[in-house]
Amino acid sequence: MISKSLLKLIRSLDIKKYRRDTGLFVAEGGKCVGDIINSGIVCEKIIATDKWLSENKLKTNAEIITVSEEELQKASFLRAPQGVLGLFRQYDGSTDASVAESELCLALDDVQDPGNLGTIVRIADWFGIENIFCSHNTADIYNPKSVQSTMGAIGRVKLHYVDLPEFLSSLNGKAPIYGTFLDGENIYDKELSSNGVIVMGNEGNGIGAKCAESVNQKLFIPNYPIGRPTSESLNVSTATAIVCAEFRRRK
Amino acid sequence: MISKSLLKLIRSLDIKKYRRDTGLFVAEGGKCVGDIINSGIVCEKIIATDKWLSENKLKTNAEIITVSEEELQKASFLRAPQGVLGLFRQYDGSTDASVAESELCLALDDVQDPGNLGTIVRIADWFGIENIFCSHNTADIYNPKSVQSTMGAIGRVKLHYVDLPEFLSSLNGKAPIYGTFLDGENIYDKELSSNGVIVMGNEGNGIGAKCAESVNQKLFIPNYPIGRPTSESLNVSTATAIVCAEFRRRK
Repeated sequence: MISKSLLKLIRSLDIKKYRRDTGLFVAEGGKCVGDIINSGIVCEKIIATDKWLSENKLKTNAEIITVSEEELQKASFLRAPQGVLGLFRQYDGSTDASVAESELCLALDDVQDPGNLGTIVRIADWFGIENIFCSHNTADIYNPKSVQSTMGAIGRVKLHYVDLPEFLSSLNGKAPIYGTFLDGENIYDKELSSNGVIVMGNEGNGIGAKCAESVNQKLFIPNYPIGRPTSESLNVSTATAIVCAEFRRRK
Repeated sequence: MISKSLLKLIRSLDIKKYRRDTGLFVAEGGKCVGDIINSGIVCEKIIATDKWLSENKLKTNAEIITVSEEELQKASFLRAPQGVLGLFRQYDGSTDASVAESELCLALDDVQDPGNLGTIVRIADWFGIENIFCSHNTADIYNPKSVQSTMGAIGRVKLHYVDLPEFLSSLNGKAPIYGTFLDGENIYDKELSSNGVIVMGNEGNGIGAKCAESVNQKLFIPNYPIGRPTSESLNVSTATAIVCAEFRRRK
């Protein structure tokens, strides 16, 4: 049975203030919960139905609370709860900029849409990009909807919320900083490294002026055929996918 | 002033049955309306505020109905109407499969999410893919939300709703038919042509068995580094972006 206070805590995690104050987040469903446990993120509690526990195995030392379908429904953020809900501790490790000197990282400058953010985390996961540096105004990955939209990728990709202009400027001269701009150079004509940062911008305004100052490699995804009237730009997650695929194709 | 019957007609276009019966659809905002008019899609009526008309120009022979902000609010599907709403006739031209013998086309097998569909239309537009063949169970592009999410690209990309397995099988031996599969061949090792069809599948189930029978070029977008545990798959619009970019890069 789930206690009233635990139920209240879980329900409060829909709100950013409470996620920040507690440092906790919720994930649901066997695949997502399992992926996050396997990643080494600290699991505080598992809430699951008898039925789910009898059909599935979880490798965790966390307390497992068995609940009825009705109790799970009360705790869950999904319309159709998936038998198991995990309470996890947010990643709280180092945000040392120097990781960008040896590895390829992403940086998000005020990406607003939780769906775009979730998609970008899945893209990073697919292409082995393990660190994403986000401006403070970027959507919160620990929102229950965003967590679910990563489909477990959040267990393998670390998101660091930082002062992004300061972070980028601290890398000046130490690692290449890429960004997509409508007046950038054709990405297929550029040398692309296996370290550094790729900055992606806000849905409406692109990369802000402060972050743009630090970008020393301006990229452009060419449309086809050149000169044909087309959309003004690509969606931010679409552009992220194409850019990350191209960086990794070169390897 | 807008008549009651016209207001009723516009409001009914939120529902697929009425869109199908009338063959009409709605687009809003200067950019989207302008792009669609420029594409040659038949414009039946323009509904706009005095203020919008005094600040903008539209090249159309359609009847222009001047309305108050309040009247536009009643007609609009947007929370914040953008001064102008256009009533258009759905594309109703040829769906001759032979276009795939000379050009690169997309085919969507039951793509369900209107957001994914809109994003895919923008991707097609960016990469100069002018024809998309959709299974009857694919989301309806003429839904007001989908129209807006294409950001005008719907004016430059034609969507044909067809019996997709039949369409693909009619192309057998006449044009290459590509599709992405988790057991496909690395796309970067394959020859990619400038004609044919790229089939993309449903969000949960991928390409259905009937359509898969016609795919003669199975592609896979490699993750990086190979062997690292990662997400099970990429989102359908993400995969479409990467595949289309790669086809066009080769040109």
